[in-house]
Amino acid sequence: MSTAPVRSPPRKTRRAVAAAEAGRSPLTPETWIDAATEVLVDQGIDHVRVDVLATQLGVTRGSFYWHFRDREDLLRRVLQAWRERATVALTRRLETDRSDPHEQLRNAASLPFRGRAAAKAARIELAIRAWARRDEMAREAVDEADAARLAHHERIFTALGFAAEEARGRAFLMYGYEVAESILHRQGSAADREARRVFVERFMQSRVTPEPEAGP
Amino acid sequence: MSTAPVRSPPRKTRRAVAAAEAGRSPLTPETWIDAATEVLVDQGIDHVRVDVLATQLGVTRGSFYWHFRDREDLLRRVLQAWRERATVALTRRLETDRSDPHEQLRNAASLPFRGRAAAKAARIELAIRAWARRDEMAREAVDEADAARLAHHERIFTALGFAAEEARGRAFLMYGYEVAESILHRQGSAADREARRVFVERFMQSRVTPEPEAGP
Repeated sequence: MSTAPVRSPPRKTRRAVAAAEAGRSPLTPETWIDAATEVLVDQGIDHVRVDVLATQLGVTRGSFYWHFRDREDLLRRVLQAWRERATVALTRRLETDRSDPHEQLRNAASLPFRGRAAAKAARIELAIRAWARRDEMAREAVDEADAARLAHHERIFTALGFAAEEARGRAFLMYGYEVAESILHRQGSAADREARRVFVERFMQSRVTPEPEAGP
Repeated sequence: MSTAPVRSPPRKTRRAVAAAEAGRSPLTPETWIDAATEVLVDQGIDHVRVDVLATQLGVTRGSFYWHFRDREDLLRRVLQAWRERATVALTRRLETDRSDPHEQLRNAASLPFRGRAAAKAARIELAIRAWARRDEMAREAVDEADAARLAHHERIFTALGFAAEEARGRAFLMYGYEVAESILHRQGSAADREARRVFVERFMQSRVTPEPEAGP
């Protein structure tokens, strides 16, 4: 691996490089995956190229191939890392830590508001969704994550006592709210966002009285 | 303008070029705007370049400048065209054609399902949202469109008799559903999508009975 000095990498990749250099260890696959994810978020999938990443990380192109077969292999592992962080771990935590479905619902409703980590996760996810519009591999990963989260939400509403079809409808609406909140986060003030979170949490658990059909 | 033969343009731009050639008229600004929008959707904003479009349309780069100051000018008009089609016209139609708020809500709930035109509009909008993540001009256009649609939905729920805060919460949830349906349209079968549309339409209009707080 080249020990050439880093050629002004973007702010965010500097940390990974500094960390790797501090330990005098060669870059790990995770460093490449994180750098690729950052470029994906900041510039889009077309800019995620081995030469660009190698320059950013201050290493040779060749060292990339210690860890990855090719660019496709790197992209596959970017998706794997996203799924692991975004879905698998989350679902496992929600299901083991909380037995009360009311609290599980509260957790789901507050997910878009969990500070900088949530904001960063939302940016990564939107970048992957944009990529998925044009790439089959990314599309499959996103579809699978959406299906897993919808199934998870459906289990919450079933546990709250709603019948199957009703639970499915509420799960979709609830998950739609979370997706929309990450996309529409600039709509309204922090107080507005909090007000709609409180509304959604209450409304999604409520029993409904159907509106009477308008008479003739 | 060059009369050089078209160099195998993508399928979708062929129609516009054929139409222009049939009339032997020079390309209109709209032809450039449509071609730019198609490239945006199919390949992303980085690929929307004057030279690429000129090649696709089989004309010289120079003819571009008959209609546009520069690339930025073209992009601004791509956004204007999107806003005009997606928001202004829609809001006007919904507000003048339908006086019954129940019917307005039904219309809003069925928007994501209006056949190929709706699917194409959704693809354009998702491409513009992806662009807006990295571009201030696009971001402003998207924010404005979202705000206009949320305000429109809020007026529907107010007309249905809900108090201000409740109407705002329902408007966000309803709009979130529409956004989510365009993003998550691969989740479930056509029957599933129809079932959740029916659920959403009913649920969003329903009066609620708050869940009693869990006692000690």
